[in-house]
Amino acid sequence: MADHDPGPRPTYALRRAALRDLLVENRVDALLVTDLINIRYLTGFTGSNAALLVYAWDTTEDRTVICTDGRYRTQVAEQSPDLRAEINRASARRVVEIAGEWQTGRVGFESHIVTVEQHRAFLAQATGLDLVPVSGLVEQLRMVKDAFEVHQLAAACTAADTALAALLERGGLRPGRTERQVARELEWLMFEHGAEAVAFETIVATGVNSAVPHHRPTGAELATGDFVKIDFGAVVGGYHSDMTRTFVLGHASDWQREIYDLVLRAQRAGREALAPGVATKAVDAASRAVIEEAGYGELFVHGLGHGVGLRIHEAPGIAKTGTGTLLDGVAVTVEPGVYFPGRGGVRIEDTLVVRKGGPELLTHTSKDLTVVD
Amino acid sequence: MADHDPGPRPTYALRRAALRDLLVENRVDALLVTDLINIRYLTGFTGSNAALLVYAWDTTEDRTVICTDGRYRTQVAEQSPDLRAEINRASARRVVEIAGEWQTGRVGFESHIVTVEQHRAFLAQATGLDLVPVSGLVEQLRMVKDAFEVHQLAAACTAADTALAALLERGGLRPGRTERQVARELEWLMFEHGAEAVAFETIVATGVNSAVPHHRPTGAELATGDFVKIDFGAVVGGYHSDMTRTFVLGHASDWQREIYDLVLRAQRAGREALAPGVATKAVDAASRAVIEEAGYGELFVHGLGHGVGLRIHEAPGIAKTGTGTLLDGVAVTVEPGVYFPGRGGVRIEDTLVVRKGGPELLTHTSKDLTVVD
Repeated sequence: MADHDPGPRPTYALRRAALRDLLVENRVDALLVTDLINIRYLTGFTGSNAALLVYAWDTTEDRTVICTDGRYRTQVAEQSPDLRAEINRASARRVVEIAGEWQTGRVGFESHIVTVEQHRAFLAQATGLDLVPVSGLVEQLRMVKDAFEVHQLAAACTAADTALAALLERGGLRPGRTERQVARELEWLMFEHGAEAVAFETIVATGVNSAVPHHRPTGAELATGDFVKIDFGAVVGGYHSDMTRTFVLGHASDWQREIYDLVLRAQRAGREALAPGVATKAVDAASRAVIEEAGYGELFVHGLGHGVGLRIHEAPGIAKTGTGTLLDGVAVTVEPGVYFPGRGGVRIEDTLVVRKGGPELLTHTSKDLTVVD
Repeated sequence: MADHDPGPRPTYALRRAALRDLLVENRVDALLVTDLINIRYLTGFTGSNAALLVYAWDTTEDRTVICTDGRYRTQVAEQSPDLRAEINRASARRVVEIAGEWQTGRVGFESHIVTVEQHRAFLAQATGLDLVPVSGLVEQLRMVKDAFEVHQLAAACTAADTALAALLERGGLRPGRTERQVARELEWLMFEHGAEAVAFETIVATGVNSAVPHHRPTGAELATGDFVKIDFGAVVGGYHSDMTRTFVLGHASDWQREIYDLVLRAQRAGREALAPGVATKAVDAASRAVIEEAGYGELFVHGLGHGVGLRIHEAPGIAKTGTGTLLDGVAVTVEPGVYFPGRGGVRIEDTLVVRKGGPELLTHTSKDLTVVD
């Protein structure tokens, strides 16, 4: 794997400053962060055991503490050199203890992450502390990607684009190959083109299987005339790409061209609706209207898209029932689909960043109907 | 991928019967199961959204309910045909509601899984219910593997054994290749030999990197005289294999032979200590004593092993401080290591099943020191 251009540097201190503003708004003196992805976002630390304590008014960060166990002593010093590091196997309990020693008052904890059992342990440790449930604060920050993050996302999307191009060029999609063979080869090619991991289990669905939205690759063989739906992604620098393309093998029939064109128009409508200040449900509606007008609304059985970043699925959701509003810099997928049970289906998906002047497209593989010979 | 011999059938109804006995012991009328792996273990259902309600005295299973969303309507009917299935996106809350409608009384919930936020939602839904925190009941059952599970574990271990043999045969370990190339090729070979997934990110650590217990593969090149430590596993039928082998490239020096022999003797001592009724910490001690007697106790920086099954790490832990006792049918790893920082390290690991007559070895790759030419 070639190491990719490192690009802009991550700005962990700025992210923590933004979090401190949210803590003041939410009237807690400090936040105990225990979600490992949130910790990575705020500190750069990637170990498998960590807890982080961020104080609302601590602009000099004298009190910011990260705790991990002895395996990660060197790593935490390298990845988070500007933070005070504690070494303790029971990282979260130790951080609660520190908050108690410092008589912190109101300490927020991530109530969507902390289990009932952990919470009991915290209460036993937290003499004199007021543990306050808060939910999704760091996730709210993570929606808007900074320059470093967009660079990583773009690199992940490039790895996926390049791998798919290589798969097509070497004749990877041809009658007689199995869905599993295609999925494994595509994953291998992603690694060859810079991925550090696959973003999720690759979906390759041929023929009638393409009508199953989240089909798992089987020994089914590709055949002439099949739709072949491929939904896949790469991870670079911890960031996930997500793209779906649907091909036709050999020759496309009229109904295939019609459905493909419909989904493509719906996908374009979704992309064009992306702008700062737009409600996520309005984006879903813009795309869904195209499919509903064609009379196939009931065959578009899922939401339009989702946020993407350090996790493959993160805030915001883009669906009928969403309540959020897009901001400049939010990274999302747009992925309408129409599925005829027992016959076949089409999904077309890009990863994009919401921008004032129109969305920034990160997945560059052509969306024209491609008939693979 | 060749489908492997299906072997014995899973016995979900028997597993639920065993759970009912534990519910009676723990004085709850029912258990709300929300951990997806526990649900898979108890029902065979593998969807990504589910909740399960099992009643203590419900031997006819009239009241056992599994709930999932509309995406999985067909799948749940196929995978769990003997259970009443409810379709509701908010699966756990719906099951709590059902327990309320049936005036259940004391309903246990998995307090090591349920978050504080979920718990609040359950309380809002659970009019008249007494929600009781219980922890690790299904995990306790999962420690002892039935015939179906041992068959899957053995198939996963065979996929790993075969892939490693193929890697060696095709000259995959040779000076000039990078750790990353070796890791990717070994993972590819596992898929070719029947794996449905890799059990965890493959560790390939050469030269000084072999001294890092959980080294992540880099662009470092294998060189003559290096230890090459490879820790990897396959997944078959949801079950994980786990094996480590350490090779020497070209020729082994005296200190390498000495350390290898020491770790091998420690690993044998650990394996030989495995028996029903033995305390897990006694197994750790039996292996660790060999290394301590040689004066290298401080270089064996981790526990001896762990349970393995539907997760790569599960109960029981085998370490200095463990409190459990082994039972017939428990599947574990035995993996002592000695690591000289800045120089190199050796770890040797097998996956085994505890049996009365002596442990059943599932990973069959030779543990003799292999010098790769």
